[in-house]
Amino acid sequence: MSTPNTLNAALLQISHGDDIDAKLSAAAKQGAHLIVLPELHDHPYFCQTKDPQHFALAESIPGPCTSHYSQLARQHSVVLIISIFEKTNTRHFHNTAVVFDTDGQLAGRYRKMHIPEGPNYYEQYYFSPGDLGFEPIQTSIGKIGVLICWDQWFPEAARLMTLAGADILVYPTAIGWDPVDDEDEKQRQLDAWIIVQRAHAVANSLPVIVCNRTGFEKDPGGNTSGIDFWGNSFICGPQGELLGSLNATQSSILSARIDLNRTDEVRHVWPYLLDRRIDGYHDLIQQKLTNRIKK
Amino acid sequence: MSTPNTLNAALLQISHGDDIDAKLSAAAKQGAHLIVLPELHDHPYFCQTKDPQHFALAESIPGPCTSHYSQLARQHSVVLIISIFEKTNTRHFHNTAVVFDTDGQLAGRYRKMHIPEGPNYYEQYYFSPGDLGFEPIQTSIGKIGVLICWDQWFPEAARLMTLAGADILVYPTAIGWDPVDDEDEKQRQLDAWIIVQRAHAVANSLPVIVCNRTGFEKDPGGNTSGIDFWGNSFICGPQGELLGSLNATQSSILSARIDLNRTDEVRHVWPYLLDRRIDGYHDLIQQKLTNRIKK
Repeated sequence: MSTPNTLNAALLQISHGDDIDAKLSAAAKQGAHLIVLPELHDHPYFCQTKDPQHFALAESIPGPCTSHYSQLARQHSVVLIISIFEKTNTRHFHNTAVVFDTDGQLAGRYRKMHIPEGPNYYEQYYFSPGDLGFEPIQTSIGKIGVLICWDQWFPEAARLMTLAGADILVYPTAIGWDPVDDEDEKQRQLDAWIIVQRAHAVANSLPVIVCNRTGFEKDPGGNTSGIDFWGNSFICGPQGELLGSLNATQSSILSARIDLNRTDEVRHVWPYLLDRRIDGYHDLIQQKLTNRIKK
Repeated sequence: MSTPNTLNAALLQISHGDDIDAKLSAAAKQGAHLIVLPELHDHPYFCQTKDPQHFALAESIPGPCTSHYSQLARQHSVVLIISIFEKTNTRHFHNTAVVFDTDGQLAGRYRKMHIPEGPNYYEQYYFSPGDLGFEPIQTSIGKIGVLICWDQWFPEAARLMTLAGADILVYPTAIGWDPVDDEDEKQRQLDAWIIVQRAHAVANSLPVIVCNRTGFEKDPGGNTSGIDFWGNSFICGPQGELLGSLNATQSSILSARIDLNRTDEVRHVWPYLLDRRIDGYHDLIQQKLTNRIKK
């Protein structure tokens, strides 16, 4: 399939409760070809606490949520990446991103492979680890390597999407500060998060789109100080260069023009992928320091 | 072996021709426990051109070069990381880092695994790919994961050193600008290089030391505009936070105090390594986009 060389990418950095449909419409009117929503955008970030009632938020695919966004993708003629708490037809649960093409067709889905578990982020209580691997999703604007939040910390995930032919890496996320941390720690955490994702662009010579939540959400369990979602969504090119970024508190659309040909130019100058030492990488798939052994 | 919790790390960002021994002595007098030299520091960066005469620069281990630096490590009672064009006793050639412990003993060596090949960096002409894998080297101050220059672009390398127990990642490098590139491209390249290495710290929760050359070196073959080595050596902590850095042109010692306990604290907050999906990583060791197939 022939793909365009440049595209207008947009993301919606939103707080829970924002009018997503209106913002989608506005982004489309600005000329977006691709629109990204943050992780689990239709709900408060319920994983702050372990509550069996929250399983009622899960939906099948197709279902009301995907029907709604499918229609919006078609109506606006955009590639749209949404995030959903998925219940499978065998009654399992995943943290899933769904990609709609410009005609509203479901182009594919990605089930979050790396699931966090810790204070304020009890995702292993809700979600099974993804079972579809690291496969980019073909759309009319290119192959999109969708990864989700905690996947950000794993260069393996970005590399696998690249090896499988991704043209762009996209990260819907929901991450923020613990309000009790001091300002230095908050800055280090934010910088680490930005750096590691810009580095996925660098290491793979691909553009990267990161769409985070903003705004404070209290812990529904009342056990912690809640999460101050740190925004700072960004779009960068294949050298990690920022094409656009938002601050911590903006609830707004971020747009940037991505030149997919730039990846070729960068790979001509620094052709890392030719020099991978697969003969020396075997320990990457050995049981070392890893809890989840599912071979 | 019990290792100290904090250590004074130093690196020598030097131009070819600088008095390395004097700078080593100065760094030791400042209290360094660990001193890092840049890639192939005893020679001009001869890989700018393919010239069979340059093979005469290769040395065996042990040999005059390692004897010299072994004595300096013992004399100053520092762990010392040097970089050498190694000729093996079977007449093969490697780009090798050697680590001496504080008593001058050779603690171990690392042979550069990823070898670049392109204008100004014809390393595949000179060096066989490393054959010792990604093994950190045990010293009296901890296990040091030494990687070399082009290895910087491969998150796989940093991860493998981490899985094998590294306490610190160290990159001796020799990288610079093509003087004919415009300023925007130069800035993007430098930023990419800094970001990707700070991200190795982030993704692995380890401190990282990067020691680069500075100064201009002409192409001995006369075919290109030479290399303007871009310096910018740095030391960062396990969240990628800069503990110290130099600019492009400083020929000087950079020192920073590294707290190895900080790695524990960071891994308690963001314990990525527990959540690796080794069951989904198999394609990392498949022949995809890779020239060097040596299974």
